[in-house]
Order: sequence, then C-alpha cells, then structure tokens
Amino acid sequence: MTPVISVVGRSNAGKTTLLEQLIRELTARGRRIGTVKHHFHGPVEVDVPGKDSWRHRRAGAVAVALASPNTVFVVRDMAETEPLEAIVHRALGGVDLVLTEGFKSGPMPKIEVNRAAQEVPLLCGPDDHLVAVVTDRPLEAPVPRFGLNDVAALADFIEREFLQGSTASRVEVLVGSRRLALDPEVQEILARVVRSLVGDPTNLRGGSLIEIRIPGSPA
Amino acid sequence: MTPVISVVGRSNAGKTTLLEQLIRELTARGRRIGTVKHHFHGPVEVDVPGKDSWRHRRAGAVAVALASPNTVFVVRDMAETEPLEAIVHRALGGVDLVLTEGFKSGPMPKIEVNRAAQEVPLLCGPDDHLVAVVTDRPLEAPVPRFGLNDVAALADFIEREFLQGSTASRVEVLVGSRRLALDPEVQEILARVVRSLVGDPTNLRGGSLIEIRIPGSPA
Repeated sequence: MTPVISVVGRSNAGKTTLLEQLIRELTARGRRIGTVKHHFHGPVEVDVPGKDSWRHRRAGAVAVALASPNTVFVVRDMAETEPLEAIVHRALGGVDLVLTEGFKSGPMPKIEVNRAAQEVPLLCGPDDHLVAVVTDRPLEAPVPRFGLNDVAALADFIEREFLQGSTASRVEVLVGSRRLALDPEVQEILARVVRSLVGDPTNLRGGSLIEIRIPGSPA
Repeated sequence: MTPVISVVGRSNAGKTTLLEQLIRELTARGRRIGTVKHHFHGPVEVDVPGKDSWRHRRAGAVAVALASPNTVFVVRDMAETEPLEAIVHRALGGVDLVLTEGFKSGPMPKIEVNRAAQEVPLLCGPDDHLVAVVTDRPLEAPVPRFGLNDVAALADFIEREFLQGSTASRVEVLVGSRRLALDPEVQEILARVVRSLVGDPTNLRGGSLIEIRIPGSPA
C-alpha cells in the first residue's frame, strides 16, 4: 500500500514550503510523489482554457477528464464521507509516497512544522501519530527533530522509515471506500491467481501494473 | 468494461452542445456519465484558489489532488503514449458511460455531428466505427440519423445499443496501459477468487466495488 505521510502545523507554519522542499528532494532521489490537500472554502472553482469540460461538468457529468499530451486533469464527484485512502487509491495510484497537507485526523504518520516566531505549542498530541517535528526551536517531543531547512536529513528519515522495501511490489485492495490490509501471504496468493488468470505472460513483462475493478456481489 | 462513445465532427459542428444535451438527458435517466476531452494546445494551465497544490506540482509531484467536501480535483502526469482506455480506467472508474469529445481514432463507436450550414461531408469514413449521425440535413449514411435537437431519441438509441445489461457487473482489467478483454467465464472466476480472498463478506455487502492494484511480475 502506498505510504501516506501528513505534514501538519498551524496556519502559516510553513507547511507548503516544507512540502515543496521535500517533493524536490525526494523527486531528485527518484521517488514518485503524490500530494493531497483539502480545500475547505466553498466549491473548487477551476478556470481552464478548454472550457468545454466545464460545460460537460455543469451538464451533470460526475467525472470529467481533460487529456493533454503529458498531463491528465480530472474533476469528479466525491462522497462527503469518502476517506483519504479512497482518494489516494483512485487518484494517486502508482506513486511511491503520498504527502498530504493539513490532514490531522486519521492514523497516518504526521510531520509537524512549528516555528519559533509563531510562539505556539505543538498541534499534535500524543494520539496523533506524530513521527517527526520540523522546527527552529528546542522542543521536547519524543520524536526526531529537524531544522526548518534540514530537508536532506528529513528525506533520509522518510526513506529509512517509510520507503524501505519495494513498496511497488505490494498488492493494494480497496473495498468500497475502505482500504483492506491483507496478510502478506494472502497478497501473494491473490497476485499469483490474478497473474495466472490474466493469462498471457507477455502482458506482464516489464512489471506492468495490473489494475482490476470487480463488483462486490454477484449481479 | 465501461462503454465509451465518441462524439466527433468538424470544428464548430456543435459537439459540445450535443454532449451537454446528452449528459443532461442521460443523467436525468439515472446514468452516471464521465467525459474525456483532448486538450491539444500547449500545457493545461489551471488556476485554482488553493494554489498550494500548484506549488506541489511545480516542485515535481507527479500527481496532486485537491479534495473539497464534494469534489476531488486531480492533475497528474501521463505518458504521451497512454491510450484512452487507460485514462478511462484510472480517471473515470465507476461511471456507467464515458462520452468523449473529438477522439476520432480508435475502435470506439462514434456519433458524428454534421450541420447543413457547414456544407461539409461526413468526417467519418467507413472504417471509423460510425454508429449514428446527428444532423439537420438529409444524409446518406448507413447508420441511424437523428435531428440536432432529437436528444431523447438519441439517448434511447444509446441506452438500447450500449447500456443494456448491467455494465456494473463486469470485471475491468487494465494491464500496464492496455485494457484486457477477458472471457466472461474467466471474469466470473476472477471475481469469485478475489471475493473469497478479500474475505469478510460483510465488506462486500451493498455491492461495494473491489479495486485492486497488483504488480505484474514478482519483485
């Protein structure tokens, strides 16, 4: 399953700046990074040159895609109850690591940014799965502490703690909107059965990803 | 597999208007519609209030998602060689029908819009999988012909020809970027094996979709 790490902190703590630095650093190391950010204030209003897609959307299309030669751009309906893991599975498949900005609830590991100038205590409490703090002041936290510009060391920490082993070799399963944590042995059986049913081994050369969508109950 | 129908026609023939009408009509009939449009002219420049996602993207993230309570908005890298079916599988999963605007190549069925005022012959030739023409003039085409505003009849035609049977009960498989047409019996076996391995039948109540991503070859 793609690891997800959330960068949290109070308003103006420097979350986006840290994310930019981390994305640059990890991308330079060959990692494929996806990000998720919440947009709380009203509907997402998007202005795009290819306005036709917005006419499709306004007419009622639940999902519209605009495909340019190197980029695909998608807007789709989402249930308000849809958890982060469903977004990650559906929208960010194929990345090595997902960094989210400002998702404080949920069991994913958190990196908190806390600057001295803000004079505020840590946002994360003992139950918030805090794994590291990025700060310019001494802080008593039972987790590793990194300087505001100490991105290489933070990237080392992330690689060591969350990107060891071939994450790409894992089987990812989403049922409805819920991610399923399968036993490694079951993952292996599932992968073998699917590979054999999908047939032609030339399809699978080069480690091509197999993506399957199956209705949950018989029609 | 989600049916895909392409609406084609020369520039200014009225493709987007027809698509809007069709989306409204089919949505009113309870169908979930997705759309894809090509954007040829330079990179997609998107201006969004939540600018942070664009800072993520510019920093090198291969995929960024902006999640608002009812909508998720995604921009991601796409290989130039990625076929339409990969976009449909990854970006438009869960819809009943995908309507594309302006994709003339490929084996999907085409509906051509052709207006008398344009004084041009049909764009689609005999090898273009033309299934219907929408026009305000008499045309000799070996396919059904609908008036420019005859949307209800066109929607009837689409439902009858392409949406019969429970499309939702089908198993969809994408290997690499290639859609796999599995034998119906293999689909059924695959679905049963997966449902049994995924385990807990309560997960599957309500016909929840199972989505799986499996690396193609052993690590």
